[in-house]
Amino acid sequence: MRTPYPLPRTGISVDAHAFATDEECALDPAGMVPLWLAGLHWPGERGLSGHSDGDVVAHAAAEALFSAAGCGDLGSNFGVDRPDMAGAAGVRVLSEAAEIVILSGFDPGNIAVQLIGQRPRFAPRREEAERILSKAAGCPVTVSATTSDRLGFTGRAEGLAAVATALVVPAP
Amino acid sequence: MRTPYPLPRTGISVDAHAFATDEECALDPAGMVPLWLAGLHWPGERGLSGHSDGDVVAHAAAEALFSAAGCGDLGSNFGVDRPDMAGAAGVRVLSEAAEIVILSGFDPGNIAVQLIGQRPRFAPRREEAERILSKAAGCPVTVSATTSDRLGFTGRAEGLAAVATALVVPAP
Amino acid sequence: MRTPYPLPRTGISVDAHAFATDEECALDPAGMVPLWLAGLHWPGERGLSGHSDGDVVAHAAAEALFSAAGCGDLGSNFGVDRPDMAGAAGVRVLSEAAEIVILSGFDPGNIAVQLIGQRPRFAPRREEAERILSKAAGCPVTVSATTSDRLGFTGRAEGLAAVATALVVPAP
Repeated sequence: MRTPYPLPRTGISVDAHAFATDEECALDPAGMVPLWLAGLHWPGERGLSGHSDGDVVAHAAAEALFSAAGCGDLGSNFGVDRPDMAGAAGVRVLSEAAEIVILSGFDPGNIAVQLIGQRPRFAPRREEAERILSKAAGCPVTVSATTSDRLGFTGRAEGLAAVATALVVPAP
Repeated sequence: MRTPYPLPRTGISVDAHAFATDEECALDPAGMVPLWLAGLHWPGERGLSGHSDGDVVAHAAAEALFSAAGCGDLGSNFGVDRPDMAGAAGVRVLSEAAEIVILSGFDPGNIAVQLIGQRPRFAPRREEAERILSKAAGCPVTVSATTSDRLGFTGRAEGLAAVATALVVPAP
Repeated sequence: MRTPYPLPRTGISVDAHAFATDEECALDPAGMVPLWLAGLHWPGERGLSGHSDGDVVAHAAAEALFSAAGCGDLGSNFGVDRPDMAGAAGVRVLSEAAEIVILSGFDPGNIAVQLIGQRPRFAPRREEAERILSKAAGCPVTVSATTSDRLGFTGRAEGLAAVATALVVPAP
């Protein structure tokens, strides 16, 4: 590149998780798998399947950082070699991802995530989610939400999805 | 950030709307809900359901700007508090979104949108769409189009989707 | 824009292709349509339908560059006017796209792609894919991979999808 300044790099990620089944909920002491989303607990809402807490917003944010910095993905970073990350909370996944990206020579610039799903109603807790995720990532994280107008697997409420983009900049 | 220049921020959005049903079309004086897409009217094409004109391209563009600047989303900006925006044209949604983003302290840099759907055939009107949307947003807006190879809800022609990204930069 | 430096532009693209049918595989001398993905051949894996080799990763990368630079899309650049590109390999599509973007006045900054699908297992060949695609594009190309947790058309293994973003910068 011939730019007179360090050119930032952009990254992208999609993440999707199915809602927990009735059988998985029956195994939970509370009778329902808890929903953790965007770093927050959502009381009374059915949670997602997954080895981790299935937080699609935090996971998409972390993978967008990896994508921008060329650090692989959640599987290659937090797979079988990191048993301590099995079942890790989304906020921890995101903060560990930011550390890996910094160690690889990039500073996180910002992350933007959009949640796609029919529920929960996200808007009342948007600012709370943005605060906790921004603190975890060490850069501004914005979160928006949309339904898919009852179309596709998110529209049929089979699961939740999130899309994310991130900007990182080479460290000086 | 330690960059010697104002680091831009990136944003992302997906939008989807179902095609109007036969019942909705029957209620329309013309016998068909009109299709508004990328700021343009598409004669002879079935339109989309929605309180607004359902313009997925303009909506995704507007939400990508909000996402980059951390201004929430269409619902939080143009929801029940803005009855004047109910049924607003996509071009107006986009220009109002750009104004909100500027008031929040960011300048729109560019917006890129991709339409996903089997029809209408977009290519012949791409430059016309880019002109009208760029004027509305006050920054370059590019629009491309793809089918999903008959896969998923766009492939089954149940509706149209659009993905968008935007770059904004902190105002000096 | 009032920035004291050439502001980069961001672009986005989604690409999807269905897996080849049993009928298409039966027509192939090897009894199976070969899979070309991210510029690599994947022995023993069923390939994708398509006029070209159906390389969703390379195609999404190329379209994200076009999207950022406002150069249209694969159809408008490599359609009926370019019979030499019918059936072209993904790597060639990407390198030709980078040339078109440079001729239009932009330098490719980086491209980030995420493959979405249940198979093949991508991680072991990620770095190989990134090398060949980066060479083709003339800028860093990162590739990550995810499943969609058995949701949607990728989860049902009807096909593969890829999402990509790119950053380009106006040439000095």
